Amino acid sequence: MPQKNTSRLPGRHFLQIPGPTPLPDRIMRAIDMPLIDQRGPEFARLGKRVLEGIKTIFKTTQPVIIYTATGTGAWEAALVNTLSPGDRVLMVETGQFATLWKIMAERLGLKPEFIKTDWRVGADPKVIEEHLRKDKGHEIKAVCVLHNETATGCLSPIAAIRKSIDAAGHPALLLVDTISSLASTDYRHDEWGVDVTIGGAQKGLMLPPGMSFNAVSEKALRASKTAKLPRSFFQWDDMLTMYKQGFFPYTPATQMLFGLDTAIEMLHEEGLDNVFARHDRLAEATRRAVRAWDLEILCRDPQYYSPTITAVLLPDGYDADQFRDIALNTFNIAYGASFGPYAKKYFRIGHLGDINDAMLIGALGATEMALALAGVPHKKGGVQAAMDYIVSAQSGATRVAAE
Amino acid sequence: MPQKNTSRLPGRHFLQIPGPTPLPDRIMRAIDMPLIDQRGPEFARLGKRVLEGIKTIFKTTQPVIIYTATGTGAWEAALVNTLSPGDRVLMVETGQFATLWKIMAERLGLKPEFIKTDWRVGADPKVIEEHLRKDKGHEIKAVCVLHNETATGCLSPIAAIRKSIDAAGHPALLLVDTISSLASTDYRHDEWGVDVTIGGAQKGLMLPPGMSFNAVSEKALRASKTAKLPRSFFQWDDMLTMYKQGFFPYTPATQMLFGLDTAIEMLHEEGLDNVFARHDRLAEATRRAVRAWDLEILCRDPQYYSPTITAVLLPDGYDADQFRDIALNTFNIAYGASFGPYAKKYFRIGHLGDINDAMLIGALGATEMALALAGVPHKKGGVQAAMDYIVSAQSGATRVAAE
Amino acid sequence: MPQKNTSRLPGRHFLQIPGPTPLPDRIMRAIDMPLIDQRGPEFARLGKRVLEGIKTIFKTTQPVIIYTATGTGAWEAALVNTLSPGDRVLMVETGQFATLWKIMAERLGLKPEFIKTDWRVGADPKVIEEHLRKDKGHEIKAVCVLHNETATGCLSPIAAIRKSIDAAGHPALLLVDTISSLASTDYRHDEWGVDVTIGGAQKGLMLPPGMSFNAVSEKALRASKTAKLPRSFFQWDDMLTMYKQGFFPYTPATQMLFGLDTAIEMLHEEGLDNVFARHDRLAEATRRAVRAWDLEILCRDPQYYSPTITAVLLPDGYDADQFRDIALNTFNIAYGASFGPYAKKYFRIGHLGDINDAMLIGALGATEMALALAGVPHKKGGVQAAMDYIVSAQSGATRVAAE
Amino acid sequence: MPQKNTSRLPGRHFLQIPGPTPLPDRIMRAIDMPLIDQRGPEFARLGKRVLEGIKTIFKTTQPVIIYTATGTGAWEAALVNTLSPGDRVLMVETGQFATLWKIMAERLGLKPEFIKTDWRVGADPKVIEEHLRKDKGHEIKAVCVLHNETATGCLSPIAAIRKSIDAAGHPALLLVDTISSLASTDYRHDEWGVDVTIGGAQKGLMLPPGMSFNAVSEKALRASKTAKLPRSFFQWDDMLTMYKQGFFPYTPATQMLFGLDTAIEMLHEEGLDNVFARHDRLAEATRRAVRAWDLEILCRDPQYYSPTITAVLLPDGYDADQFRDIALNTFNIAYGASFGPYAKKYFRIGHLGDINDAMLIGALGATEMALALAGVPHKKGGVQAAMDYIVSAQSGATRVAAE
Repeated sequence: MPQKNTSRLPGRHFLQIPGPTPLPDRIMRAIDMPLIDQRGPEFARLGKRVLEGIKTIFKTTQPVIIYTATGTGAWEAALVNTLSPGDRVLMVETGQFATLWKIMAERLGLKPEFIKTDWRVGADPKVIEEHLRKDKGHEIKAVCVLHNETATGCLSPIAAIRKSIDAAGHPALLLVDTISSLASTDYRHDEWGVDVTIGGAQKGLMLPPGMSFNAVSEKALRASKTAKLPRSFFQWDDMLTMYKQGFFPYTPATQMLFGLDTAIEMLHEEGLDNVFARHDRLAEATRRAVRAWDLEILCRDPQYYSPTITAVLLPDGYDADQFRDIALNTFNIAYGASFGPYAKKYFRIGHLGDINDAMLIGALGATEMALALAGVPHKKGGVQAAMDYIVSAQSGATRVAAE
Repeated sequence: MPQKNTSRLPGRHFLQIPGPTPLPDRIMRAIDMPLIDQRGPEFARLGKRVLEGIKTIFKTTQPVIIYTATGTGAWEAALVNTLSPGDRVLMVETGQFATLWKIMAERLGLKPEFIKTDWRVGADPKVIEEHLRKDKGHEIKAVCVLHNETATGCLSPIAAIRKSIDAAGHPALLLVDTISSLASTDYRHDEWGVDVTIGGAQKGLMLPPGMSFNAVSEKALRASKTAKLPRSFFQWDDMLTMYKQGFFPYTPATQMLFGLDTAIEMLHEEGLDNVFARHDRLAEATRRAVRAWDLEILCRDPQYYSPTITAVLLPDGYDADQFRDIALNTFNIAYGASFGPYAKKYFRIGHLGDINDAMLIGALGATEMALALAGVPHKKGGVQAAMDYIVSAQSGATRVAAE
Repeated sequence: MPQKNTSRLPGRHFLQIPGPTPLPDRIMRAIDMPLIDQRGPEFARLGKRVLEGIKTIFKTTQPVIIYTATGTGAWEAALVNTLSPGDRVLMVETGQFATLWKIMAERLGLKPEFIKTDWRVGADPKVIEEHLRKDKGHEIKAVCVLHNETATGCLSPIAAIRKSIDAAGHPALLLVDTISSLASTDYRHDEWGVDVTIGGAQKGLMLPPGMSFNAVSEKALRASKTAKLPRSFFQWDDMLTMYKQGFFPYTPATQMLFGLDTAIEMLHEEGLDNVFARHDRLAEATRRAVRAWDLEILCRDPQYYSPTITAVLLPDGYDADQFRDIALNTFNIAYGASFGPYAKKYFRIGHLGDINDAMLIGALGATEMALALAGVPHKKGGVQAAMDYIVSAQSGATRVAAE
Repeated sequence: MPQKNTSRLPGRHFLQIPGPTPLPDRIMRAIDMPLIDQRGPEFARLGKRVLEGIKTIFKTTQPVIIYTATGTGAWEAALVNTLSPGDRVLMVETGQFATLWKIMAERLGLKPEFIKTDWRVGADPKVIEEHLRKDKGHEIKAVCVLHNETATGCLSPIAAIRKSIDAAGHPALLLVDTISSLASTDYRHDEWGVDVTIGGAQKGLMLPPGMSFNAVSEKALRASKTAKLPRSFFQWDDMLTMYKQGFFPYTPATQMLFGLDTAIEMLHEEGLDNVFARHDRLAEATRRAVRAWDLEILCRDPQYYSPTITAVLLPDGYDADQFRDIALNTFNIAYGASFGPYAKKYFRIGHLGDINDAMLIGALGATEMALALAGVPHKKGGVQAAMDYIVSAQSGATRVAAE
């Protein structure tokens, strides 16, 4: 049965990184169309349609800015449009991506205050509240949180954080990164009182990387009038002016907008609540598999469990990167890497985007088999546990549908 | 967790029918290219390349005719080019497709003699030999066999059948259908002395339906000079004349030829022996799953096990079509249907084409979960058994590679 | 300005052969989608939709059979389903394709009577009528005519031919090939009393080659009950039975059906009458260019002018194939070749399918420039004449729209 | 001939805007592929290949940074990586895009000095030299020029500007925008001593919008060490560090890199010198058409003629936007708009990217016909003049090739 002398890994690649996520063919084909004049009437119709449509995904009636840039660009946009050099900002070290955002804030001349964690939980609203209460002078201008820390698979409670800011009577803006949660789990920009929501294309929106978002509140727009950080490419004003006609101030990635148009359509065809329920089901199935394998989930507190990413710690002495190599070379599956204090200690299973039950079982199957081949100590039965859970969840579905 | 009010089944469709098989993106993109002049120099290069390349797949140095028609057309081509009205032909009732081929022979004015089976085995060389021995006058002009009976998942031993014909000292032509076996399991047109091999695009060749093949021996070509069945569209002569320049006598499906070119390239990149080993591994894993479920494999004799298709009998009283509906609606997976005496009694899992281990585990997982949801009596553990087998097979692979 | 040392012809290829025609991206993308189960519910919906939709293109309420085969297959289908060995059929030698159809008839055991022409006109209804009147015993079972002779660019008057058959009081079936006219110029299967209309995918339907059609009258269906030519792949009966459920008796080219679905939609979006007017306009513009070049149009009688193809004779002593090579290598444009008595004497400009005014001007411009580079004696001004005509035609359009 | 009641413009869209340019199918298909892990081994190979390959397009051996952002982002990147708040920069008002870049510089806190022109010429090296000579204190930190002003179709002589800076003995950095000239006309980052070259994907590189470039000199890299403008998304350092392994510091637009890989390959297949000669030929043909129409080319000095864009002034009193509408609605062709002091007075014909002679003739034909339909006073014969020129240029080609 040797697979020797081969330069091709057969079959479909299992892209189980925490994003970019597998592209649905329908979206790929929508993107794969000839360009149109970005100043012409057909584009204007497209522009207006997606600029309205994307609001339904953020659950907002306020403007959403669309950038031709990946998520890092939208992080920068959120900061430079609302803040001034030297401004203090409160951030929470939920993991690697929170750390990167903090470094960005420093580079841009802001003064981040970084609430530490052990990278195994989300942001704690109480700690934020305490921190803000101490800031009697209201020098902290913004609270910056990741809804879902992509590096660890921990979800933070944004509605509760909003309440904690209010409870502290603090006027700071709330900036939230939803790059690895948007369109995968419930998120309510308006209802939760978020000032800038940062989103990306390449996760729950099922698009390739190259597009990102800022959903902005009225308060954020007001802040942008006096914010002094230099900005041009990311400037909101020009965008909002041009959006009235469905155009962009400079050439946007037209094809990505074709894709976005289709993605929004597909999410509503499935129904956002069904999309969220599906992600919850896949996440719980994954966690049951991990527990059955007798491995540890990095996120140590169930209240922070991520519906999109599960990071799995390997036993001491086992190199997660080596495991990932074996899985890739044998089963054509890619996982996310580990970072910082946990480098080489865990791998991340992305179970977000256009994934269904059978795809997840394939991915978990590949994982269980790769654990065996890599000699990582574990128990069998993870896939079985995941299937048992899915069967129970789907019988519920069937029952309800029949009523 | 209900999936109500949705018009979209998320994620990738698991096309586990016994063909057409899942199209690799690389082949899809090769096909999705603008047309070229079918009489121009670029086409001539393409034509010559695929006409040579396809021979390596049939393991022949003799001509392979390429038809713009699905497999049924290639069946007809094999008959009308070699036989005359009223000719007796020997066929074996391996299942539904053998039956359809027999009906075709009758319609074309031939006189098929049909060796019965219970549809749960392949063609028996000894029975063929006995039958031929009785035909002292050599009135039987051709023996027609399916290498793999797509309807039942039983593989027939072509090399042994060749020997049985020779042992009987019978001059009949040997016509073999490899539609659901070609490019998935070893097949040797020349070495096994086959006169016409019928192949199709949409299975092991990983192409969409719309193309089929006749690999022809010198003896078959000679027979075609005197064969009197009327023919024009399927006529070999014109084809062979034009092929010298890389052209076709009438407009071929250019895009399919782009795809075929890529498919041949991909099969050789993986290595044909690796392709066959992969199919064997997936087939054995599937059978182990079926046994673990305590269900019955339709093919009742292991010597006939198909490397590409496994038909699974449901317990008495359970409707396989109903089971297939539940699986499709819940897990977005399609299986092959059942036929004839076994209608509604089994479903067929196709595990051929561009399928890998993780995809198979996803498919078997969906099957095990659908069995539960459909209330079909079975034991758990099928997926586990399949994974255990794959791990053992792939460890072998790793060991050998390391030597 | 030398184009040396290059292995790439830049820009878009001008596929001005008389078909296959340039594929619209929308159709290409519709085709470039993953396969679905050809026995599943999604397919059934698709099948029913295209089987109904295609009738609107043939202007019929009677069944249209869809073959996975190129036009040659549909020719054969029309003959074998309606005729018996030895039947006399009346055919008109309009050119190369009529000749090929005649040869096919002979191969199938029919007795074609071939009305001669000089290949520079279409079929003359009067001559047909005379011929039929002589057949007192009604031994001629079918009249076979090409609506548009692809080899010469001559269109035959089908409605008038129908009348001539009726005038002769002859019961022969009327079989019409519309391969290079369907969906490009008006055609009325029912109103004109055609018994079998043969169509192809790769011309006016803007699809790749690989699909063809038989629209069949009730009379043709009746004839098929007694027709004795052997047939199986092309047999109508099984098709019609399965069509009731939206399925095909054997695996069809699923992706082509996706494309057909989109093609029908696009034709109706533009409006069939607009499609026909566009083809008329492009044809007339092309003829004006040819006349301005002082070259001769092969079709020598304006009443037979083809709306889809214009064959252009080169002056004596100039090799049309050499001219085509120069045009291809310099301007990336492909024309149709010449045949039979006119081999190397003309080239054919296809102006059918998804072509618009600017594309045609590009093609005619390439032609005028290639004539100069090839040293073919001609006058300048062809493109100018074509543009002048288009401007006059389009001003009409604008005027009418404004009313 | 009326085109009434239609919701579809048939045929191919002529995207003659000055970019984005028509996408070759080969590039579209390269982009239309499933995503791969942006941290995996396959990506590393891709990353290294394109990071090296893109250097051959800029004619540099120094690093080229690839941004997931359109050209505006690369403008910002060039400024923020090399300059500090309050720095004086010298810019030339060649037209709208130069003006936008100047506004960007102001927003970022720089002090641009703007050399005026009438928008009908390129940047004059002598004026730049004079300006720099006056800056005895070397307070001007950078000279910013557009190689090709996209808004007017005027090309500036970069090599001469380099010499003028040197002649002035001025240490300012030279930042050059090649967005609408790169890969269409000769450009030599190293030889011409440019410090930062800004490029974009969607013009000569034949890619969709969404990617842009900074080619950076050693001097520019040194400047970046002390430049104090805040930056993070556009920061060069992180990029250069990650590039060593073929990776990007944050998720890049993977699919665009697939496309870039193919674009570089295609440009070298054609040969860069052939690409440039082709653009020169198309530009000269276009200008000859404009002159024959008796219309005025916006660029008033032939030494500044752009090889990629020709802006055409309409006679006084004629609205260029209205003309563009008529051309779009009748002939499915899009041109670039006019700006600033010339708003509605001209339209721009883009003749760059994957365009060939026949496509240009189609576009010029549509233009000539639309001029007639729109009632714009002009002479006929533009297309004829363009064809005459192309014939003469291509005969040269043939002659040379034959030698």
